[in-house]
Amino acid sequence: MRRKVYVEGPREGIRVPFQEVELSDGNEPVRLYDTSGPGGSPLPALRAPWATGRTQLASARAGVVTSEMEFVAIRENVPAELVRAEIAAGRAVLPANRNHPESEPMVIGSRFLVKVNANIGTSAVTSSVDAEVDKLTWATRWGADTVMDLSTGPHIHETREAIIRNSPVPIGTVPIYQALEKVKGDPVKLTWPLFRDTIVEQAEQGVDYMTVHAGVLRAYTPLTTSRVTGIVSRGGSIMAAWCQAHQQENFLYENFDEMCALFAGYDITFSLGDGLRPGSIADANDEAQFAELRTLGELTHRAWAYDVQVMVEGPGHVPMHKIKENVDLQVELCGGAPFYTLGPLTTDIAPAYDHITSAIGAAMIGMFGTAMLCYVTPKEHLGLPDRDDVKAGMIAYKIAAHAADLAKGHPGAQAWDDALSKARFEFRWEDQFELALDPETARSFHDETLPAEAAKTAHFCSMCGPKFCSMKISHEIRAQAPL
Amino acid sequence: MRRKVYVEGPREGIRVPFQEVELSDGNEPVRLYDTSGPGGSPLPALRAPWATGRTQLASARAGVVTSEMEFVAIRENVPAELVRAEIAAGRAVLPANRNHPESEPMVIGSRFLVKVNANIGTSAVTSSVDAEVDKLTWATRWGADTVMDLSTGPHIHETREAIIRNSPVPIGTVPIYQALEKVKGDPVKLTWPLFRDTIVEQAEQGVDYMTVHAGVLRAYTPLTTSRVTGIVSRGGSIMAAWCQAHQQENFLYENFDEMCALFAGYDITFSLGDGLRPGSIADANDEAQFAELRTLGELTHRAWAYDVQVMVEGPGHVPMHKIKENVDLQVELCGGAPFYTLGPLTTDIAPAYDHITSAIGAAMIGMFGTAMLCYVTPKEHLGLPDRDDVKAGMIAYKIAAHAADLAKGHPGAQAWDDALSKARFEFRWEDQFELALDPETARSFHDETLPAEAAKTAHFCSMCGPKFCSMKISHEIRAQAPL
Ligand code: SF4
Ligand code: SF4
Repeated sequence: MRRKVYVEGPREGIRVPFQEVELSDGNEPVRLYDTSGPGGSPLPALRAPWATGRTQLASARAGVVTSEMEFVAIRENVPAELVRAEIAAGRAVLPANRNHPESEPMVIGSRFLVKVNANIGTSAVTSSVDAEVDKLTWATRWGADTVMDLSTGPHIHETREAIIRNSPVPIGTVPIYQALEKVKGDPVKLTWPLFRDTIVEQAEQGVDYMTVHAGVLRAYTPLTTSRVTGIVSRGGSIMAAWCQAHQQENFLYENFDEMCALFAGYDITFSLGDGLRPGSIADANDEAQFAELRTLGELTHRAWAYDVQVMVEGPGHVPMHKIKENVDLQVELCGGAPFYTLGPLTTDIAPAYDHITSAIGAAMIGMFGTAMLCYVTPKEHLGLPDRDDVKAGMIAYKIAAHAADLAKGHPGAQAWDDALSKARFEFRWEDQFELALDPETARSFHDETLPAEAAKTAHFCSMCGPKFCSMKISHEIRAQAPL
Repeated sequence: MRRKVYVEGPREGIRVPFQEVELSDGNEPVRLYDTSGPGGSPLPALRAPWATGRTQLASARAGVVTSEMEFVAIRENVPAELVRAEIAAGRAVLPANRNHPESEPMVIGSRFLVKVNANIGTSAVTSSVDAEVDKLTWATRWGADTVMDLSTGPHIHETREAIIRNSPVPIGTVPIYQALEKVKGDPVKLTWPLFRDTIVEQAEQGVDYMTVHAGVLRAYTPLTTSRVTGIVSRGGSIMAAWCQAHQQENFLYENFDEMCALFAGYDITFSLGDGLRPGSIADANDEAQFAELRTLGELTHRAWAYDVQVMVEGPGHVPMHKIKENVDLQVELCGGAPFYTLGPLTTDIAPAYDHITSAIGAAMIGMFGTAMLCYVTPKEHLGLPDRDDVKAGMIAYKIAAHAADLAKGHPGAQAWDDALSKARFEFRWEDQFELALDPETARSFHDETLPAEAAKTAHFCSMCGPKFCSMKISHEIRAQAPL
C-alpha cells in the first residue's frame, strides 16, 4: 500500500512529503520522492514564513542554510551543508520565486537526483485553462519536478495564474512567447521595454525560472543556413528574426544586466535558452550550437555576479556517440552550472515515439551529469500533447532519470530497485505492483491473463507458466541446496 | 508512398527486398531494410536451389561466397567479401537451416546493421497456433530480423511447424522447453538422449538457431544463492535443477561435441544461452554471470572446430555504467562471436514499461558492439505478450538498433534520418509520415488536432501553432538573408 507521509525537519514548519510503500514481508517501508503536492486549490503558502530578502544564491554564498535548503536536504537524503555548498558554487539551483510560496522546495544539480521537467501550455490551435491545470496536476502526480507553462494564444496571463496558484513544483516560462502575442505575432515589433514589462508581469505572478534566449547573437544566424533543420527553438527563431530585421544585436543580450538585477529582486532563476539547438541528427554538435554555448557560458558568469541562479539549456537531437561532448563542454564553459536538456533524441526516424528516442539520450546525458531532463512526449513534432501524452512522457523520463541516478551511484537510488526485485522474486505481487512506477498499469497487465485473486500469490505468471517459472525453480533449488 | 522493390543480385535468383519510400521533392527514393517477406502461405522455398553440403562457416573458411552471402551483401550495402570474411572469422553468423529454405538470408555481426529478435510463442496458460503465426507475421512487418518461438504447453510441434513454414526470417528455439514438456515438467527426468531427439525433431523442421544452456555448470549454482533474484533464465534454472538433483555435470556441456556434429549437419547456429544472466540491477556483472561467460567462451571455440556458427547470449538487467564491461568481456572471451542480448533493462522499477527501461540499455549495448538485440515487451515480468505488446516491443527496439547504427557510423544509416528531417523542415508532411518507423501512428497523431487535408502542406502544426512555428520562421529568415 502507498500513502503520503511527512518527515519533520529540524526547524518548525519544515515537513517534507514522501510516498511510503508498505511491504508485506515485514521489512521497512520504501520511501519514494513525492512531487504530487498537498492537494486542494489554491495550495497553502508553505514558504511564506521563510521569506528573506536575499536570493538562495546570496544566502548560500553568505554561509546561510535557508529553510528551503533544509527542506531539500531531507528530500534528497543528503547533508544540508552539501546543498548550501553546491548552490553557493553555482553547481545547483533552488528555483523559488518569492511570489510562488506554494511551491515545495527542490534542488537541481549534478550531485542530486536527476530531475524531470514537463512542458504544458495552450497553443493558439487548441486547449483551455482548465485542461492545462489538469495537465499540471497530472504531470506532478507522475513525478514532474518542475513544469514549464509554454502557453501561447489567448488567455496566457490567466492560464499562468491558475497554474502557479495550483503548482507544488517550480514553474518555468519562456516570456518571449507572451511578448510576441502582445505584438500580434510579429517578431520585428518586439522591444526591450515590452519584454521587460512582460518579465515583471510574470515575476509578480511567481514564475520561478524563465527561459531567455540571450545567447542567440546576430552573428550566429549565418551559421545555421546550411543546416538540415535550421533553427528549431521557437525563442531562438524569434530572436534571430528580430536581429536580422533590425540588423542589431539581440536585445536580450544587450540588456542582460538589467534583467539580472530584475531577476535578483524575485529570486528568479535563469534558464539560459539554447536557441540554436540542433533539430536533427545531421545538425548535432555544430558550430552554431557551440558558438551559442560559449555565449551562454559568458552570461552564466554575468548572472552569478548579481547573485542570480542559472541553469543552461541543452539539446535537442544528438546521436549517442556525440552526447558526452555536450556535457563536457557545457560544464567547462558554464562553470558547472546545472545543465537542463531536451532529450536528446538519438534518432529522427520515429515521430510518434520520440518519448522513447529521447529517453535513450536523456538517460545517457543524465549519467554524464545533466541535472534536469525536459521530457519529450509522443506528440513531439506532430501536435500539442494531451493528458495521455503527458503521462507517457513523464513515465519515460522518470525511467531515464532513475536509470541515470543508478549509474551515478546516487545514495539510496538502488534501494527502490532492490525492494521491487525482492518482491518479484518472492512472488509478493501486490508489493511489486505498489513499488512500480505505475502501479495501476502493472497490475492491469498482470490481470489481463490471470485476473483471479489467487494469482496474486501464485508462484508463476502467464509469461512462462507454472512449469517454466524460472524464479519458482530457483526457489526449489535453494530449498534443496546443502547449506 | 511506400512500396516493395527487389534489387537483383549478381547471380540468378538473388532478389533482395527493400521498402522504397518515394519522396515528393524529386529526390531519390529512400530504401529501407525490409523483413516482411514475400507474403503468401506457405512461403516459397527461396533458398532451395542454393543448397550446398557445407555450412556457411565452412564455405566462408574455404573462401567461398555463398548465394546467401551475396544476398546479405546487397541487403546491408557492403561488399560480399566483407560478409564472407566476417563469417569466416566467427564475428558474424548467417543462420540458415537447410530445412528452412523459405528464409531470406540475413547476417548478424558487429560490422553489420544491429538486428532485433522478437520472442513469440504459446505458454501453458494462454494463446493458440493461429495467434502465434499472426504474431510472427506482425513482428516481421515491424522489422523483426529473427523470431524465437518460445512455445511451451501443448501443440509445440504444430505451432513451430506453422511458424517455420510461414517465416521469412530465421527462427530460433530453446529446445529444452519441448524436452521438459516430454517429461511432464519434471527437470529431474531430463536425459541427453531425450534432448538429442528433441534437437533432431526441431532440426528436421528447419529451426535456424537454438539456445542451449550448456554453460550452466554444476559448480556455478552456489554462486547464485546470495543473489536478489536467483536464476531467472528458464533454461538456466532447469539445468541447474537437473545438476543439483543428479549431482552431475550439465549434460549439455558433457555432450556438447555430439551436439556440434549434429548442428553442422543442418547448419544450425548455436545461441549459447546465458542461463545465469542477472534478473535485477543488484545481480548485474556478478561472479555467477561472468563464470558462465568464461565457459561460453570455451564452448564457442569448440563449436567453431566443427564449422558450426555461434552467437552468445547476454543480459538481462544491468545499470548503464556496467553495460560496457559486458561487451568488452564477451568479445575477449568469445573471440568476437556475435553478442545477442536481452535488453538490458537499466532499472527494475518500471514493470509494464520494460520495453523502455530496456531500449535504453539495448541502444547502448548496441553502440558498444552487440550484434542483435532481443526485444522486451511491456508485458515482461507480468504476462504473455499479445499483438500490441509485440508491436510496442518491436518499435522500441528498432529505435534502439537504429540509434546504435548511427552511433557506430554504419554506412548509410543516417540517410534515413536526414531524409525524414529534410521532409520535416520543408513541411512535406506526407513524406515525413511515410518515412516514419510507424507511418500510421505518426499520421494519426498529427490528424488528432489538424485533420483537414490542407494541414498536410501547412507551415505549422498544433504543437507551436502558426505564429510560433520555429521552422516557418527559420524559412523566413533564410528567405530574407543577404546571400
Ligand atoms: S512465470 Fe516467468 S515472468 Fe512470471 S513470475 Fe515466473 S519467471 Fe517471472
Ligand atoms: S509548429 Fe512546431 S512542431 Fe509543428 S512543424 Fe512548426 S516547429 Fe515543428
